[in-house]
Amino acid sequence: MNKPVDERVLPFAPLLHVLWADGQLSNGELTALREHVPLERLDAGTRAALLAWLDTAQPPDPRALDALRRSALRAAADGAPPATLAELGTRIARTHVQDAAALAGVEAVLLAMEAAIGLPGAEAARSLVPEAVPELEAAPSFDASALHRFLNRDHFELRQRVLRILSTPEFTQTDTLDHAAHRELVLQRCRRLAHEGLGALAYPAEFGGLADVTAQIAVFETLAYGDQSLLVKYGVQFGLFAGSIYQLGTRVHHERFLKPALDLDLPGCFAMTETAHGSNVRDIETRAEYDHAAREFVIHTPHRDARKDYIGNAARHGRMATVFAQLGAHGAEHGVHAFLVPLRDEQGRLLPGIEIEDCGRKAGLNGVDNGRIRFTNVRIPREQLLDRFGRMAEDGSYTSEITSPTRRFFTMLGTLVSGRLSIAAAACNAAKSGLTIAIRYAARRRQFGPEGRAEVPILDYRTMQLRLLPRLATAYALEFALRDVIRRFAGTSQPAPDELQVLVAGLKAYASDFAVQTLQAGRQACGGQGYMSVNQLPRLQADTEIFTTFEGANTVLLQLVTKGLLTDYREQFGELRLWNVMQWVRSRAAAAIDRNPIVTRRTDEAHLLDPDFQHTALRYREDHLLDTLARRLRRRLADGMDTFAALNECQDHAVALARAHVERFVAERFHDAAAACEDQQLARPLRTLASLHGLGTIARDRAWFLEQGVLESAKSKAIRDELIRLCQQVRVDAVALVDAFGIPAALLPAPIAFSSDHG
Amino acid sequence: MNKPVDERVLPFAPLLHVLWADGQLSNGELTALREHVPLERLDAGTRAALLAWLDTAQPPDPRALDALRRSALRAAADGAPPATLAELGTRIARTHVQDAAALAGVEAVLLAMEAAIGLPGAEAARSLVPEAVPELEAAPSFDASALHRFLNRDHFELRQRVLRILSTPEFTQTDTLDHAAHRELVLQRCRRLAHEGLGALAYPAEFGGLADVTAQIAVFETLAYGDQSLLVKYGVQFGLFAGSIYQLGTRVHHERFLKPALDLDLPGCFAMTETAHGSNVRDIETRAEYDHAAREFVIHTPHRDARKDYIGNAARHGRMATVFAQLGAHGAEHGVHAFLVPLRDEQGRLLPGIEIEDCGRKAGLNGVDNGRIRFTNVRIPREQLLDRFGRMAEDGSYTSEITSPTRRFFTMLGTLVSGRLSIAAAACNAAKSGLTIAIRYAARRRQFGPEGRAEVPILDYRTMQLRLLPRLATAYALEFALRDVIRRFAGTSQPAPDELQVLVAGLKAYASDFAVQTLQAGRQACGGQGYMSVNQLPRLQADTEIFTTFEGANTVLLQLVTKGLLTDYREQFGELRLWNVMQWVRSRAAAAIDRNPIVTRRTDEAHLLDPDFQHTALRYREDHLLDTLARRLRRRLADGMDTFAALNECQDHAVALARAHVERFVAERFHDAAAACEDQQLARPLRTLASLHGLGTIARDRAWFLEQGVLESAKSKAIRDELIRLCQQVRVDAVALVDAFGIPAALLPAPIAFSSDHG
Repeated sequence: MNKPVDERVLPFAPLLHVLWADGQLSNGELTALREHVPLERLDAGTRAALLAWLDTAQPPDPRALDALRRSALRAAADGAPPATLAELGTRIARTHVQDAAALAGVEAVLLAMEAAIGLPGAEAARSLVPEAVPELEAAPSFDASALHRFLNRDHFELRQRVLRILSTPEFTQTDTLDHAAHRELVLQRCRRLAHEGLGALAYPAEFGGLADVTAQIAVFETLAYGDQSLLVKYGVQFGLFAGSIYQLGTRVHHERFLKPALDLDLPGCFAMTETAHGSNVRDIETRAEYDHAAREFVIHTPHRDARKDYIGNAARHGRMATVFAQLGAHGAEHGVHAFLVPLRDEQGRLLPGIEIEDCGRKAGLNGVDNGRIRFTNVRIPREQLLDRFGRMAEDGSYTSEITSPTRRFFTMLGTLVSGRLSIAAAACNAAKSGLTIAIRYAARRRQFGPEGRAEVPILDYRTMQLRLLPRLATAYALEFALRDVIRRFAGTSQPAPDELQVLVAGLKAYASDFAVQTLQAGRQACGGQGYMSVNQLPRLQADTEIFTTFEGANTVLLQLVTKGLLTDYREQFGELRLWNVMQWVRSRAAAAIDRNPIVTRRTDEAHLLDPDFQHTALRYREDHLLDTLARRLRRRLADGMDTFAALNECQDHAVALARAHVERFVAERFHDAAAACEDQQLARPLRTLASLHGLGTIARDRAWFLEQGVLESAKSKAIRDELIRLCQQVRVDAVALVDAFGIPAALLPAPIAFSSDHG
Repeated sequence: MNKPVDERVLPFAPLLHVLWADGQLSNGELTALREHVPLERLDAGTRAALLAWLDTAQPPDPRALDALRRSALRAAADGAPPATLAELGTRIARTHVQDAAALAGVEAVLLAMEAAIGLPGAEAARSLVPEAVPELEAAPSFDASALHRFLNRDHFELRQRVLRILSTPEFTQTDTLDHAAHRELVLQRCRRLAHEGLGALAYPAEFGGLADVTAQIAVFETLAYGDQSLLVKYGVQFGLFAGSIYQLGTRVHHERFLKPALDLDLPGCFAMTETAHGSNVRDIETRAEYDHAAREFVIHTPHRDARKDYIGNAARHGRMATVFAQLGAHGAEHGVHAFLVPLRDEQGRLLPGIEIEDCGRKAGLNGVDNGRIRFTNVRIPREQLLDRFGRMAEDGSYTSEITSPTRRFFTMLGTLVSGRLSIAAAACNAAKSGLTIAIRYAARRRQFGPEGRAEVPILDYRTMQLRLLPRLATAYALEFALRDVIRRFAGTSQPAPDELQVLVAGLKAYASDFAVQTLQAGRQACGGQGYMSVNQLPRLQADTEIFTTFEGANTVLLQLVTKGLLTDYREQFGELRLWNVMQWVRSRAAAAIDRNPIVTRRTDEAHLLDPDFQHTALRYREDHLLDTLARRLRRRLADGMDTFAALNECQDHAVALARAHVERFVAERFHDAAAACEDQQLARPLRTLASLHGLGTIARDRAWFLEQGVLESAKSKAIRDELIRLCQQVRVDAVALVDAFGIPAALLPAPIAFSSDHG
C-alpha cells in the first residue's frame, strides 16, 4: 500500500519513520501505544491520518517510508540539530499548524508518543540526522620510547644491533618460499649471524665470545621477533649443539669442536629425543657400547622406535650430532651419556651406518630441517664421549664423581637449562608480536557504533578489552620475571642450582602456554585479517605452537616444578627423605596453614590493587596446594599405593601447584619491578599493569579461592568489576604499551598493524 | 674411589644399591638413617663395611655401584621374585652368615634400614628386578559399529556413499601440493561432487535435488572429515552462491542460474563482507544505483575499504557473484539487496569494471581461492536483482512486503542460516577427527611408569584424561544437539523462525570455539607427533581456526543470541517494546528468581549425575543471567545512557548469557538423547558421557555458581572429584567411542592413529 504523506502527519514524520524503520513492530505494541497517547486532542482528520500510519495490518511501503524520512530530514536540516524527535516534530508543526489549540494538541501527542515509545532523545534524533563525530585517540600518558629503553636496558645496544641486522633486506620475511628454499635461506642467515659473532657470546673469549650467557639470550630473544625458524636453527646450533660440547665436554672437545660449531663451519644436531622416548629421556634406548680392543664406542639404534626423532638440523645440514645414548662397558651400565657422532662428510653425504629420514612438513618452523636418525653400529673414537661428568679411561675403566646414573644424567641436563630459559623468553616475545598486531589493529578497526554516530574502534568494546589487555599486562609481567631470572642465571656456574632449574621449567611452561593462547586471542581479535598470512599471525601461531612441547612438554615440566617444591618442603621441615620424599612428610599442625590470613570482605579498590593483598592471596594458594598435596600423597603411600600411582592420582593437583608457584613468582616480580622503577612517568602505567596482571591471575582461579573461602562472593564480583575498570584505564595507553616493545615494522610487516591502507 | 664389594656387605647390597642409584642422598639424611638403625647388632667388621658404604663424603664409584647391583641381581634371580629388598637381603645373608645371632642382627638391621628409608617394598624390589608386565587394553563395553550406526542414522546410506567417494584415490589428502595446484584440485573434486548430484540435494527435483536440506547438511558434515578446503569450496558454491539464488531470487533466477550453479558450470561467489564491514554488514558501502533509462543497476565500489573481501572462489574460479549492495533508486535508499553480477567470461577473463586481488596465502584453507573484488560502474540488467523480498518494477518503482530496510536485510539473511548450521556441524566433525587421532595415539603411546614396570599409556594419566575425555563427551553432546536442530530445521520454511536462528547462531559459536580448543588440546596431547603434518592435526588446526570468524564472528553471534533472548524476555512479560527493548523491562518480583531452588549440600554421586540436578543448575544460570542483564541495561537506559554504550558496558554479561543459553540447550539435548536410546548396550555409555559433559559444563563455570551461592564449597569439590571418576570410567571405552565416529583411515591418514609402526 502506498500512502502519500498527508500534510497533517508531517509533525509525526520523524517519530513514525523511526517506528517503521526499526522494523520490529508488533500489533500488541501498536495497540498499547495508541492507548497511551491522548489522540482525542487531535482533530478528527489528523487523528485518522495518524492512525492509518499506525496500522500494522497495512504497513507503509518502502517509498512512503522514504518520503517520510525525507520530509523529516528537510525539517531537521532547517535549523539547529534537534535534541529529540518530539522537538523536531514540534518544529514542523509550528510551520504547518496555525491554530494554537490544535498546535498544543499535536505537541501533547508528540510528547506522549515519545514517552510511550521510550525513545532515548538524542540517540533517536541522531538516527535520523547522523552527525559524524570522529573520536580522537587520546594521547598516551607516557613516552613509549622511554619505556622501550627501560624494558630493554639489559644489553640495549646489542639488541638494537640485532634488530638492525634483522631489518636488512637480507632478512626479509619469506612466507611464500617453498620448503627446500626456506631451509637453505635459514641456514644462510644463521651463517650471517655467526659471522657477526652473535652465536658465540655465551662462550669464552678464546672461542670468539664474551662468556656472557645473558648476552646470548638477549640475541635469542630479539631473534624471536623475526622468523622463528631462524630462531630455532640458531638455538640448535649455538645453544644445544655448541652448548653440549662446552658444558658436557672437556678441554679436548672445546679445542677441537667448539670454534667450528660457533663459526657454523660444523653444523650440528642435538640428538636426545627418540620416537618412543620424548619426555622420559632417561630411558632412551640408543646404545653406546665400549669396545675396549678398538678404543671405540659403537653407537647403535636397537629398533625403529629408538631412532632419534624430530632432530633439528638433521634432515639436511647437520654434519655432526651430540647423541645421547646408554653407555655400556664390559657388561656394566652407566646410564645416559653424550657422544659426538659425525653424520655427514664435508660434501654433505651421509656417513656409513647413518640413515636419516626427513620429518617432512610440520605445522610451522618449516625453515628447520628436522629428521630421524638411525645408527647401525657406528664407531667413534673413545675421545668423542663428552666426558665432563663421566670418563672412560684408556684402560677401559669408567669413573665419575656422580655415583647414580640417574643423578648424573640430570646433572648433565642441568647444564643445558639456558636453552629452556631462552625458549621462555622467545615465547614471551612472540606473544608481544601478536599483541602488537592485534592491539594496533583493534585501535584502528571500527565496527558498529551508537545510532547515527561514527563506528567505534573495536578496542573500545569490553569483550575485546578483556581479551587483549590482561594479556598485555601478562606480557609485561613475564618480561620482568624473565629479566629477573636471567640476571640470577648470569651469576651461577653450570649446572644451575635446583631452585633455578625449577623456576626455569615453570617459566617455560607458563610462557609457552601464554604465547599460544595470546596469539590465538590476537588472531581472533583480528577476524578475517588475522587469518591472512600477510598479517603475520598465522606464521606466529604455527611456529610457536610447538613451544609448549619442545624443550620439555609443559605438563611434564610442571610436574618437575612440583617435585622440586616437594623436595624443598621436605627440607624445610627437616624430614628424612630417601626413596620417596613423600613417605616422610609429616602432618603439620593444621592451624599453621589452614588459618586463612586474608579472608576479608574488603572490596574497595585500594585493597584490591594493593600488591600485598595480591601477593598474600597468591602465596596462600601456593602454600595450601603444597600442603594438601603432600598430605594426599602421604596418605596414599601409607596405604601401600606405589609412588607412580599415588602421583598420578594427584596429578591435576600437582600441576595446579606448579602453576600457582610460577604465577605467584611472576606476579611478585612485576610488582617489585614497578615499585623499583624510578621514572615516575613510567612507574604509573607499570603499576596499573601490574595490578591488572595480579588481579587477573587471581580472577582466573577465583573458583579455587571461593572454594577455599579465601574470597567471598561479593569480593569475587568486586574483582571482576575492578578488572574491567583497569582494562578501561589501560586501554588509553594500549597502543603506546605495545609500541614500547619496539618491534620494527620490518620484522612484523603486517599491513593491518602498520600500513595506513587499513583501518 | 673404588670400593670392592666386601662379602659382609652383600646382604645389604640391594638396599645400598637403591640408596645410591636414586642419587639424591644428602648428608643429613644418611646421618638420620644411621641413627635409626641398630648398628650395634652387627659385628664390628660388618658394621665398618656398611658404614663405609654410607659415607656421603666418599661416594662409591660407578663400577662399585654396578658390582653391587649385579650381586643383588644374582641373588634375586636365584629363587622367587623377592617381595621386599629386606627379604632379598635376608636371603643373601642366609647363604653368607652362618652364626644364628649374627644372622638375626643382620636381619634386624635390614628391616630397620628398610623402615627408615621408607622403601615401598614391592616397588623397590621391582626397581632392582624389573618384571615386564604388558598391560592389556580392557575390552570396550559396547560395539563401536552399533554406536556408529546409531549416531549416523539420519541419512546413513548417503553418508556412507560420501565416505566411499572421499576414500577413493581421487580424493587422497594433498598436504604437499603447491598453492595453485591445491586450488585446481579442489575445484576438480568439487566438480566430481556436483556430477554425483551431491551439490543439489537441498534444492527441488527439477534442479536435480531432493528438496531436502538435511541431506545436503549430511553431505557437508561428512566432507568435514576430509580436506576442509573442499568443504568450504563446496559450501561457497552449493550453499552460499546457489542458496542465495534460490532463497533470495524468484522463478526467473531459478530457471536461468540455479542448474548451472548446481552443476558447477557456473562457479560463483557470495560477496557480502567488505574490508571495512565484516560484522556490521548492514552498513556495507557497495552501491547498486538504479538507472531507470537503461533499466540497469550500476554496481560500484565507492572506495578501497568498500571492496568485497575474503570472497571464496573469487581469486581464480568464480564467474559470477551474488553481490550485496545498498540499493538506491531515484534518490531513495532501500537498504541492502543482493544482485547477480558476472565476474569473468567463459575463458576465465575478468569482465570490464571488475578488478580482483588475490588474498594470497592464509593460515589454512589454501585450496580455496579467496579474493578482493572492486567494481567500477559495472552495469547489470534490472532482472539480476534477486527480488524475492524487494522488487524493482519495469517502471522504476520499488516495492517490498517489508517496510524497514533493516528488517528486510535481516529477513534475507534469515534464509541463509543453513550455512551457519552447516559450519557448526562441520566444526563438530573436525573436532571428532582431532579426538580420534589424539585418543587413539594416547591409548598406545607409553611414557613413564611405575618403577621396574612397563611404561603406561599416556591416556592413563589423569591430566591427559581431563584434557581429552570431557571434550570427547562434548563432541557427543554437540552431535545430538545439532541432530535435534537440523531435524527442526527440516520442518520449517525459509526464513527460519527467530528462535531457530538464535539457536543456530549460538551453536555455531559454541561448536567452532569447541573445535579450535579441542584440536589444540589434541595437538598438545600428541606432543611432537602432533606437530608433524603427516599426522593431520596441523592441517585440521589451521583450516578450522577461521571457523570462529566466518559465517559470523563468534562474539557478534553470541550478542545476537542475547538480543534474541531479551526479545523473548520482553514478550514473556508482555511489555511494550519499540525503540528499545530494555526501556520497558519492568522489575520482576525479586523473590521469583532469586530464590535458588538448587542450593543444597548434597554431594553424593547419584545427585551429581542426576540430569535433573544438571538441568536445574544450567537453567538457573541462564535465567539469572538474563534477569540481571535486563535489570542492568534498564538502569543504564533510565539514567540516560544510550543503547550502544549500555550494551557495551554489559557486553561480557551479554556474552556469558548467550553461552549459558547454548550450553544449557546442548546439555539437555544430550541427556534427552541418552534417555531415548533404546539399545541398552549403547544407552549406558551415552548416559555416562552425558553426565560427564553436563557436569563438566557446570564445573567450567563453577566460579559463577559459587559466587551465586548455588554451589557450596564442598559440592564444588565433589563435582571435581566426580569428573575425575567419570573420566576413569570413560577411559575404558575411549577408543571405541572415537571409533564409533567411523572416520575412515583413508580420510585421516595419521600414522600415529592408524599405523602399526607407531606406539
